[in-house]
Order: sequence, then structure tokens, then C-alpha cells
Amino acid sequence: MKPIPRAVRDYIKRAGVSRVASVQPNHVPHVSPVCHVYDGEYIYIDVPKNGKTAAALKANPRITVCIDDYYVNWRRLRGVILYTRAKEAKGEAKRKAWRLIRRKFPQSVKAEWNPRLTLVLRIEDWRQWGVTG
Amino acid sequence: MKPIPRAVRDYIKRAGVSRVASVQPNHVPHVSPVCHVYDGEYIYIDVPKNGKTAAALKANPRITVCIDDYYVNWRRLRGVILYTRAKEAKGEAKRKAWRLIRRKFPQSVKAEWNPRLTLVLRIEDWRQWGVTG
Repeated sequence: MKPIPRAVRDYIKRAGVSRVASVQPNHVPHVSPVCHVYDGEYIYIDVPKNGKTAAALKANPRITVCIDDYYVNWRRLRGVILYTRAKEAKGEAKRKAWRLIRRKFPQSVKAEWNPRLTLVLRIEDWRQWGVTG
Repeated sequence: MKPIPRAVRDYIKRAGVSRVASVQPNHVPHVSPVCHVYDGEYIYIDVPKNGKTAAALKANPRITVCIDDYYVNWRRLRGVILYTRAKEAKGEAKRKAWRLIRRKFPQSVKAEWNPRLTLVLRIEDWRQWGVTG
């Protein structure tokens, strides 16, 4: 995988929402918005323990993440797609994820968003448009 | 499938962008932003003939569509997820798709977006949050 440039890493870090796709055991794709965090190397997300993403991961650890901005002026379109492999975040990785979540999303406290199934996503490939160059 | 309420249909129609997920032949999920149109029954999208969505559909016709709005105020979050089955739009279906595309996205002309692989998506299941009720 070619290194992710600083501008793309910053874009991933700052984005409030990503759309996260997985493959359910019946081969139907699932996609839903998720508030992610990124430490410059790994993406971390936290999903319901009994939701579709959790069920999908039991059969297929691949998660694809789309982070993009839409504008009516299509010359401004920009985004990143990240192909990743997920595993459950435990111990220090989970604590790190939640430190980043609490810092990036202070509204998570009032929303009573507490750890469920926290995942660490290892990026295996990526592409971008409009973020650099 | 339970009928889609008017408020949800209007939301789907008005949204400028959707994130469209499919399953590639190697079982890796793909997801990318797509400008869709909706006639109240079918979703229509147009994708590159040699892109990942087109390749995915050769092995698996399931397409899942996420249309949502993100706000820092999480009480305002809203969206729809549509589980669909795709087939190529031909003849009158394709013409209808393109009439709707040209009307909804006048910028498509200047962007030189012309028919590639146009798909008609039959909705088989759906869920929403924040759009009604």
C-alpha cells in the first residue's frame, strides 16, 4: 500500500462521519453512518454488539469506509475510500479508541454513547479524490 | 416490505447524494458516493462500466444504499438505508432515469456525465431514523 499523505490523513481525522460497509453472512451488503476516530494509523469505530456490522464481521472481517463531502458544485467533490480489515479493539487499543472518541465527540457523553463492540480497522488499501492535488 | 411513508420518499428524492455499497467478487465490500434519482418506486444510479460497482454486480446483484445527514447535534441525525436488488436499466427505464438525472442534476451536462451503466434498484427492505416520527 502506498503511504497516505498528510492531507488525506488530516481529512480522515477531521471528518465527523464515515459510511461503513460490510458484507452480511447472507451476502447482502450493509452500509451505515458511523462516527469514527483515526490516530494516523488505525481507524476506530464502535458499533452495536447485536447490529448488522457485528454480525457481518463474524463471517467476513473486511470493512470498507467511505468518507466524503458532497457539494452541488461537483468540482468541489472530495473523499476517501479505505479498504480495511477489522478486529475487536481490546485493552490499550480500546482505551485509546475511547480517549479519541471522547475528545473528538464531546457530545458522546450526553448521548450516553459508551463502549459496545469497539473495532480497530487496519487500512489495506485506499483511494482519494479532491483531497490532494 | 412495509410501504415507504411519503416523508421518507420525499427525503430520498431530495437527497443529492447516497452512499452505495456492493460486494466485490473477492468478498470485499465496496462503497462510494453516487448521485441517485428516485421516482417514488425505483432508485436509479449510473456507474462507470469498468468500475468496482459494475464488477461487483456480475457476481452479486445486491446493492445497499445509505442516504443520511450528519450534524454535530446528534439529535438531528437522520437517514435511510435501502436494501435493493440491481439490474441494468434499458429502454424506457433508462430514458426515465436520465430524464430524472438531467432534471435533478443540471450540473450533469457541464460535467459531461452521460449514460454509462445505468442501474434500476428495486427496494426489498428499508429502515429510517429521524426522517419521520
